[in-house]
Amino acid sequence: MWRIGQQAVLCRRTQQLWIRGFIEGGEVMTVEIRIQDDDSLEITGKFDLLDEDGNAYGHHGKLRLCRCGASKTKPYCDDSHVEINFESKVRA
Amino acid sequence: MWRIGQQAVLCRRTQQLWIRGFIEGGEVMTVEIRIQDDDSLEITGKFDLLDEDGNAYGHHGKLRLCRCGASKTKPYCDDSHVEINFESKVRA
Repeated sequence: MWRIGQQAVLCRRTQQLWIRGFIEGGEVMTVEIRIQDDDSLEITGKFDLLDEDGNAYGHHGKLRLCRCGASKTKPYCDDSHVEINFESKVRA
Repeated sequence: MWRIGQQAVLCRRTQQLWIRGFIEGGEVMTVEIRIQDDDSLEITGKFDLLDEDGNAYGHHGKLRLCRCGASKTKPYCDDSHVEINFESKVRA
């Protein structure tokens, strides 16, 4: 839920209401894409996962996408990166 | 920019301002992760790209992440999927 803080001034002459407001909190969670060492991409938050045709995958706000190329359940990770000894430790 | 539509009632006795408002538009863009055929993950919107230690990568709201496992510039795609003839056409 959004919490809206307001300061409002009512202009008597124009009957216009001037509002200086701010919006705080709310449910907009930044989407996080974490590149795990020798492992998949872990994605959390509110996002649309689409195929090439624009069809959306249903999801619950947290999933792991294959980045080693070997998963048999692409786009999802199925831990094939362990079988193929996938190595990739990246740092920002 | 947020456009805030308001209906406001000023209670003279309590000097409280009751606002029935709605928020429309604004800049909250849903993050889109598109799984491209035989190609990378194309990601657009407002998101954090983090390494295993939680360090953030700077970006401009659109990037391509490798999902074939062969990129030499991981986590980013460098078109190595073409060289290795990576094949993956997934549908939701």
